[in-house]
Amino acid sequence: MGILRKPKVAVGQAGGPTAVINASLLGFIDAVKADCRVYGIVNAFQGLTEDRMIEIDEAIYGKLVRYRFLPGAVLGSGRWAMTEEDYQTAVRNLKRRDIHHLVLIGGNGTMFACKELARVAEACGYELAVIGIPKTVDNDLMETDHSPGYGSAARYVASSVRDIGADLKSMQNFEKVRIIETMGRNVGWLTAASMLLKESEEQPPHLICVPERPFVLEKFLQDIERIVNNIGYALVVISEGVRDSSGNVLSQLTLHKKMTGTVLGGASRFLAKKVSSELNLPSRAELLGMNQRCFASVVSIVDRREAETLGKEAAALLRSGAGGRMVTLVREHSPQGAYVCRVGDCPLEAVAGRERLLPDDVVNERGTAVSESFKEWLRPLVGYDLEPFPDWDFAEEILLRKGDKMR
Amino acid sequence: MGILRKPKVAVGQAGGPTAVINASLLGFIDAVKADCRVYGIVNAFQGLTEDRMIEIDEAIYGKLVRYRFLPGAVLGSGRWAMTEEDYQTAVRNLKRRDIHHLVLIGGNGTMFACKELARVAEACGYELAVIGIPKTVDNDLMETDHSPGYGSAARYVASSVRDIGADLKSMQNFEKVRIIETMGRNVGWLTAASMLLKESEEQPPHLICVPERPFVLEKFLQDIERIVNNIGYALVVISEGVRDSSGNVLSQLTLHKKMTGTVLGGASRFLAKKVSSELNLPSRAELLGMNQRCFASVVSIVDRREAETLGKEAAALLRSGAGGRMVTLVREHSPQGAYVCRVGDCPLEAVAGRERLLPDDVVNERGTAVSESFKEWLRPLVGYDLEPFPDWDFAEEILLRKGDKMR
Repeated sequence: MGILRKPKVAVGQAGGPTAVINASLLGFIDAVKADCRVYGIVNAFQGLTEDRMIEIDEAIYGKLVRYRFLPGAVLGSGRWAMTEEDYQTAVRNLKRRDIHHLVLIGGNGTMFACKELARVAEACGYELAVIGIPKTVDNDLMETDHSPGYGSAARYVASSVRDIGADLKSMQNFEKVRIIETMGRNVGWLTAASMLLKESEEQPPHLICVPERPFVLEKFLQDIERIVNNIGYALVVISEGVRDSSGNVLSQLTLHKKMTGTVLGGASRFLAKKVSSELNLPSRAELLGMNQRCFASVVSIVDRREAETLGKEAAALLRSGAGGRMVTLVREHSPQGAYVCRVGDCPLEAVAGRERLLPDDVVNERGTAVSESFKEWLRPLVGYDLEPFPDWDFAEEILLRKGDKMR
Repeated sequence: MGILRKPKVAVGQAGGPTAVINASLLGFIDAVKADCRVYGIVNAFQGLTEDRMIEIDEAIYGKLVRYRFLPGAVLGSGRWAMTEEDYQTAVRNLKRRDIHHLVLIGGNGTMFACKELARVAEACGYELAVIGIPKTVDNDLMETDHSPGYGSAARYVASSVRDIGADLKSMQNFEKVRIIETMGRNVGWLTAASMLLKESEEQPPHLICVPERPFVLEKFLQDIERIVNNIGYALVVISEGVRDSSGNVLSQLTLHKKMTGTVLGGASRFLAKKVSSELNLPSRAELLGMNQRCFASVVSIVDRREAETLGKEAAALLRSGAGGRMVTLVREHSPQGAYVCRVGDCPLEAVAGRERLLPDDVVNERGTAVSESFKEWLRPLVGYDLEPFPDWDFAEEILLRKGDKMR
């Protein structure tokens, strides 16, 4: 082996992109490119299977760096269900290229596939070190304090709900109820984030529903009615994955069969219709949609920096000879002091295919508030610059000053 | 009349709020509060009819100023269909309070109601000067170069479409077509704005459909198929109000009967299903929703400043003794030089109930591009800081460098 021969590493981005997924990619490449030959895998697992990768030379790197702060996955991401045969093909492709180091940026499905790839490589007697970098707007990965992508998505959700709340408040004579739907198939982390800027009972959102709690339509309608009676209007935030006590989701999109798996979305429309028909209240559904994972203008700076840091940490782990691990974020101080998060790592097995639910004590029993400790945990991830709106009701003021009426 | 007796003015905010509607309100109040007693009308026409208004004294002003840069209408807005009786009641209420100056911030429906109020007051022999301040995200008001609210909404649309485009581009192995729906019942100004950051044929959006052109489903499906074949995926932007050659909208929401008028929304869902069933392509709908009119974090600074300036100009007009007019923006220089817009005004009759359509030459015949002059006109309203993303395809690069494949 010539002394100038550098080890080869391959890197890919899997699953739904986040607004900071390219920061992790560039963080990693920055940290290894001097010592290694780096290959970018197009469309992650599909590219691994079909051997579509390209060496990131200086020319390609010069193009890639422009994407550091942009949304979408610059290498190409996607969804691709790996079969046992695909895993073997992927390992064969890596072997043929003499690539012994593989890094994938993704969620719990990705970490599962990483673990399987390591298993298949080992069974073939091929030395392959696999490292995962967490990425998910859902924040459902175990073992890490939080996942890159979540802070920016939470920032989008919190600011959207604050702003749509102000809009609805001023339209009460036309519209009484808005039901906002966030991403979150099985977990309510983003929905809980919609409460970050709420400071009083009167401020929106007035009610949240998360998948971790069985959804009971009768109770929901009673809640809405009570809120409208007390406050004058109701802004509700639900996760797309809310489900009844039998575990059935309220609505799922009828999508094309090529879109593997179930894509949720529409629970809010279902509920807005119910509110309109059962309670006789003008109601509208609002899906926050793809902007949750890609809206570049409100990215959380802490989130972006951490995404980049974890990319660098993956490089450090590889260099130390580790494999079969995911890099993590470890919170060292609570936000009441300074926010300090250091990097760590965990075995892929500890995260692969597992889901981190929102803890029971985050949302109160009535669904009308989140705990202060959750807000304190979330605040630095979203950014301290995003402020609540002052809460004051001009119409209410008139009632208080009735004497003014005919002055 | 005592020499210290100040004239009274009433001000209200009508129709769907914008992200800068409170800037107009505060601009107006700032300019008149030294000379006049100012009354805030709650829920605009409903408040005029029901005599719900409150004097904006220093205490109230101290609260109001905090809302200068916030979305939603701080006085309370809403939709309220005025009857002839309502107009007479409203004039009677103003008369009882001895208010001879009325300012309303709103769209073409509001300007129509302003004109009617002036007519009824005149018929009753009551001296009433009515001034309108334009406000609409749709930009459908005549006589003004553009309307406050549009710049910020256009900024939200252009950045969302850029970002969602980057997201979709990286998910092509899962999803081929996204159809984004913007506000715009009868006009395509916001949909056209989605093209602001497009610099090449390959960049999204690949196709736009506006209400000013009859929508032909067969042609639409052919276009999508061609785009997917050429580019690999298709990002399409349509106005909620697109309609076929008979003038029928594609979809309208079944909303509560209390929500007066027709609320559109759903054309994108209708089309995504068609694309999926007719073309066998995975497709998804995406409504940009209420954030178009309220998302505070991406407000256009020029838009906000102009909203405030028009508020001040309404005060100047009242002071000059004028009535029955709407303040306007008059473009003096094209953006290739410096952007200069001065204030002007026009008769309410010239805008009342009329709609300003997108000129024929803005969108090209195929719906794949907007004119350079439109982009130049729009650019300063949105802000020069919002940049296009670099256009480069990693997957394409692999094809170009086939020789790399087995290196």
